[in-house]
Parts: sequence; C-alpha cells; structure tokens
Amino acid sequence: MVITKSRSFFLTDSRYTEQASKEVKGFTIKQYKKQVEDTAAFIKRLKSKYVGFEGKGLTYDVYDRLKGMLSGKRLRPILDEIDRIRSRKDTEEIEKIKKAIRLGSAGFRTGMNCIGAGIPERDVALKIEMAMKKRGAQGLSFDIIIASGKRSSLPHAKASDERIKKNELVIVDLGAKYQGYHSDETCTFVIGKPTRDQKKIYQIVKDAHDKAIDAVKPGVKASSIDTVARNFIKTAGYGKYFGHGTGHGVGLAIHEWPTISPYNDNAVEEGMVFTIEPGIYIPNWGGVRIEDMVMVTKYGCEVLTEMSKELKEVGSMQ
Amino acid sequence: MVITKSRSFFLTDSRYTEQASKEVKGFTIKQYKKQVEDTAAFIKRLKSKYVGFEGKGLTYDVYDRLKGMLSGKRLRPILDEIDRIRSRKDTEEIEKIKKAIRLGSAGFRTGMNCIGAGIPERDVALKIEMAMKKRGAQGLSFDIIIASGKRSSLPHAKASDERIKKNELVIVDLGAKYQGYHSDETCTFVIGKPTRDQKKIYQIVKDAHDKAIDAVKPGVKASSIDTVARNFIKTAGYGKYFGHGTGHGVGLAIHEWPTISPYNDNAVEEGMVFTIEPGIYIPNWGGVRIEDMVMVTKYGCEVLTEMSKELKEVGSMQ
Repeated sequence: MVITKSRSFFLTDSRYTEQASKEVKGFTIKQYKKQVEDTAAFIKRLKSKYVGFEGKGLTYDVYDRLKGMLSGKRLRPILDEIDRIRSRKDTEEIEKIKKAIRLGSAGFRTGMNCIGAGIPERDVALKIEMAMKKRGAQGLSFDIIIASGKRSSLPHAKASDERIKKNELVIVDLGAKYQGYHSDETCTFVIGKPTRDQKKIYQIVKDAHDKAIDAVKPGVKASSIDTVARNFIKTAGYGKYFGHGTGHGVGLAIHEWPTISPYNDNAVEEGMVFTIEPGIYIPNWGGVRIEDMVMVTKYGCEVLTEMSKELKEVGSMQ
Repeated sequence: MVITKSRSFFLTDSRYTEQASKEVKGFTIKQYKKQVEDTAAFIKRLKSKYVGFEGKGLTYDVYDRLKGMLSGKRLRPILDEIDRIRSRKDTEEIEKIKKAIRLGSAGFRTGMNCIGAGIPERDVALKIEMAMKKRGAQGLSFDIIIASGKRSSLPHAKASDERIKKNELVIVDLGAKYQGYHSDETCTFVIGKPTRDQKKIYQIVKDAHDKAIDAVKPGVKASSIDTVARNFIKTAGYGKYFGHGTGHGVGLAIHEWPTISPYNDNAVEEGMVFTIEPGIYIPNWGGVRIEDMVMVTKYGCEVLTEMSKELKEVGSMQ
C-alpha cells in the first residue's frame, strides 16, 4: 500500500489484480511486474520528499533495495505509530473479534466432548479444527495447542500423537480467525478427578488471572497488570514457573500491541483488546494456563471470551 | 540462531526452552528474557568483529536496534547465500518432500471424489484438508485454492462459499506440510464433459507445462525454462493471460529459491526442487493452471508429483 495525503494505492501483481479490484475498497489498484523495482519507480514519481515505511514489517533487504532506488527521497521507519492505531479497536473490529471468539467456543465445546483417556492429542485438535471451520472460521489463529500430562509444562506444545491419560491436566489453547480477526483462549482441563496438587496449582493460576483482569482499566500501565499476576504467583511460591508475559494484544495479528509484560510501561487505553493468560509450568509434572481476552472499557474491562474458567473435569465418558 | 566458527547457539524464551532442548540437535540452548536486547548482549561477548545476519528475514526495526546495541561490531546482510544453500536438497529433504507430495495426492483423490455440481468450494477444501491431516500432514502449505467457473480466472482465489456448477472448470491447488517440508501441486478439472474451448485452453497449458519440464536440466537458466512455457502460450495467442512466473522453489518454505521467471538468469542446479505451473486466466471466462514439482537430476529432471495431468472429468456422480 502506498498512501499519500490525498490518495491511496494498492500495488499487486497479475495474480491478484482482479481479486483486489473486488475486495480492496477506497484504494486505486496498480499492477506491478517486479515488486520492489516497480514500487520504487511508483514512489519516485510522487512529489513527497519523505517516505515512511513499516519498519516492523519490511525486511532489511527490501528496505535496502528501496533505499538504493529512491535516492531523491528520505526514508523514515514508522514503528509504534501503526501498532498504536491498530491497538484501539472500533465497533466493527470488536464485532469480528467476538465472532471469532464464538467460533472458538464451539471448538472448546467439541474438544470437551471428545477429549478423554486414550485419545491422541492430535485427534482432539483435528476435531476442534473441523468444528470451527465448518461453522465458518476462516482459519486457525495458530496451530491448536493440546498439551496433556507432562507435556503441559511446555507452554506452546502443539498437539502430538501422545495419548491423553486419566488424571492428567490438559491445556487447550486455541483461536479462530474470522474476517481477518483472531481469537485466543486457553482452558486447562483435568481428565477425571483432580488431585490435591492439581487443584492447588489451578487455583493459584485462576486467582492470578482474576486479579489481573480486575486490575485492567484505562490509564493503568501494562506492566502493572503483569505485576499483579506475577506477584500473586511469586508469593504463592511458583514465581520461577511463570516465565512468559501475562498477555498480548489480539486483532488482525494474533500477537500485537499492547504487550502485557514487565517491560511495557505504557498505559492501556479504552478499546484495546488483549489476553490475560498467566500460567504455572512445572517440568516433569505439568502445567496450567488460563487465558481470556478482555477489552478495555471506560472504567474497567469487559471479558470477551465465553468459556467458564472453573476447573472442569472432562473425559468421564471414556 | 547464532553460529560461530566453532559453536552453534539456539536462543529462545522460557516458553520454548524445554521443547528446544528436546528438538534442536547440535545447538547449545540459551534462554533470553528480552529477545533483541539479550541476543545483542550475547553477540557482543563473542570475539568476531563481523556479524552476518539474514537480510531477507530480519525486519528493518530489529536490524536497526541490533545495530545500535552492537557498536563495536560490523553488521553484514547475508542474502542469496542462504537461499542457495537451501535450494539444493539432500536425500533426506527429498524424502520429506516426497512424503508431503504423497499426502497431497491423498488430498486430490478425496477432492475428486467429493467435487461436483452443487457442492460449495469450501466444502471440498475442508474435506481435502481433513484427508491430508488425518494421514499425518502437519499442516497445509497454504489455504487450499478451489476456484470454479469464472473464479478460476483468479489465479490465487481461496475456496469460497460459491457452489461448483456443471460444465465449469475447477482449479484445485494444494500442498501438504510434512516435517517442515512442503508440497505444491495444481490440477484443473472439468465438471462433466469439457467444451471445445475448455479442451483447447487446457491443451495449450498442458503443452506449455510439458515443454517447460522437458527443458529442465542442470546449467539451463531459470529464465529460459520460463521462456519455453511463456513463448508457447504467447504463440498460441494467449500471452496476455499468463501473468505470473512459471515456477518457484519449494522446501522449508512454500516459495523459495529458485524463481522460475523471466527475471532470474541463474542456472538451475542438480538437487533443486521447484514447480512448473503455467496457466491461462481469461477474465469472465475462467482459467486453467497445471502444476507439478520437479527435481533437477544430473541430466534432466524427475517429476516428483504424482497426479496425472490429463484433463479429468469429475463430478459425474452428482
């Protein structure tokens, strides 16, 4: 895309021109043969002296080639500006995110119906994926995470051929894509009755999660929200088992601004949508993660995700 | 990854350290908290003065931040070198590509069984996807393209809610992923008996495709292979309806080196794997694309893909 003060252009190649003319509204479609060269030639003809570019999107190589071909222009990276614009969602975006979440809920319900002792993680993942796609999901937000037993101590383990066993914890982390927008939600289930340890760890994560959500309102630093969850887990004695950030923005990308981590001291703002997802991961024992998506409202936040986050016993049918 | 003359390091965060220590062989695993900052600090401690980086992978922003933190070092982009190494596949890689292709063939067989007049494109795509994933595909190479009727003139149309109609051409372009490696293949089917025009256009594309494959051998310029297909289609009078390149390399990425296009004058080499996929796309009429994957051998090439590329009439059961 090339955007000037008065006009907007969408540059593409012959494979996509017909489609672009149907789908890309408000832009003049231009067809190129050589992506970088023809784009540079197009920009060169524009009057502007300064050319901003997406510094977090363009590779070094493309930047370097553009720079070489745009000798008369001054290139300036645009960095956080676009992240910030995207981080505050408007009503139409929220609607799409909510639809993505609803598709994700259908996935969870399917998962809860088919999960059980003896079932390979991958089979559960495949059934969930199908359930979401049949209902209109455009895709998955990411490969579905089904991590059972000891594998649940791997925060981002993809579903494997491993069979789920009785009394194990199972982390199910999934998201659906709807009209370009993503959902992201995690439930941790237990197969059959939970042990005392499982209940205890679950409750710590659940409390950390609830307290972090309670802390969300406009003007609060993202790092402070992270601190609420992190300190609670630390005080309970499991600080070293919570290694990742508390959350991240979700929208057109599955990970976007704002990051809810110890390193982001920016305040969250009304209209931002992000996850709250603390976890405890104990190697050779297992893990628990509980994740919701929230939208910052005028005085607090609204939890957008729909699944109850009470510890659920599943698979009793098997 | 940070690779020095004598050692190789894999840097990751706490979400992936346990998994990395199991999966990443021959590398020392290092855990970071802040990706760019900690990676820079790690590189800073190494003796090397020059630091090469993947210029086609790193974004401008990360490059710029690294540069700021590595004042004592000289950063140098590595560009085609990595593409070239990856373009020549070894036996193990070929085996994985062949398995991906076999999964794709299962997808085509499923597609041919369920395609027909009245069936929405998306339903066919979903059945194909499931068939491949159930057989062990790790994922799709890309969203399955099912483009029927007039939509077949959109070279990269994703499967839509449109219902396939009798006597229409249907382009099915799909690939499976197996242990990181991709397949990519296109068949164009006709629902019921083909018209004379459909037969004619199909045969031109088929001949262009066959001739291009015949031209593949070590030492031949990629652009010359493209020319064979392009000139044939041009001579037949349809030059302006073939807008994309004739092919692209396939491996760990679905599009990689070499590009088989008018712009790549590099010679192809033994062990390279790429697609040959000419097409004719006539707006408001429809399109035909025929795509195989070939591997360059000592004296010519081997066609890796398995589906026959004769015009197949499908959907007669509906």
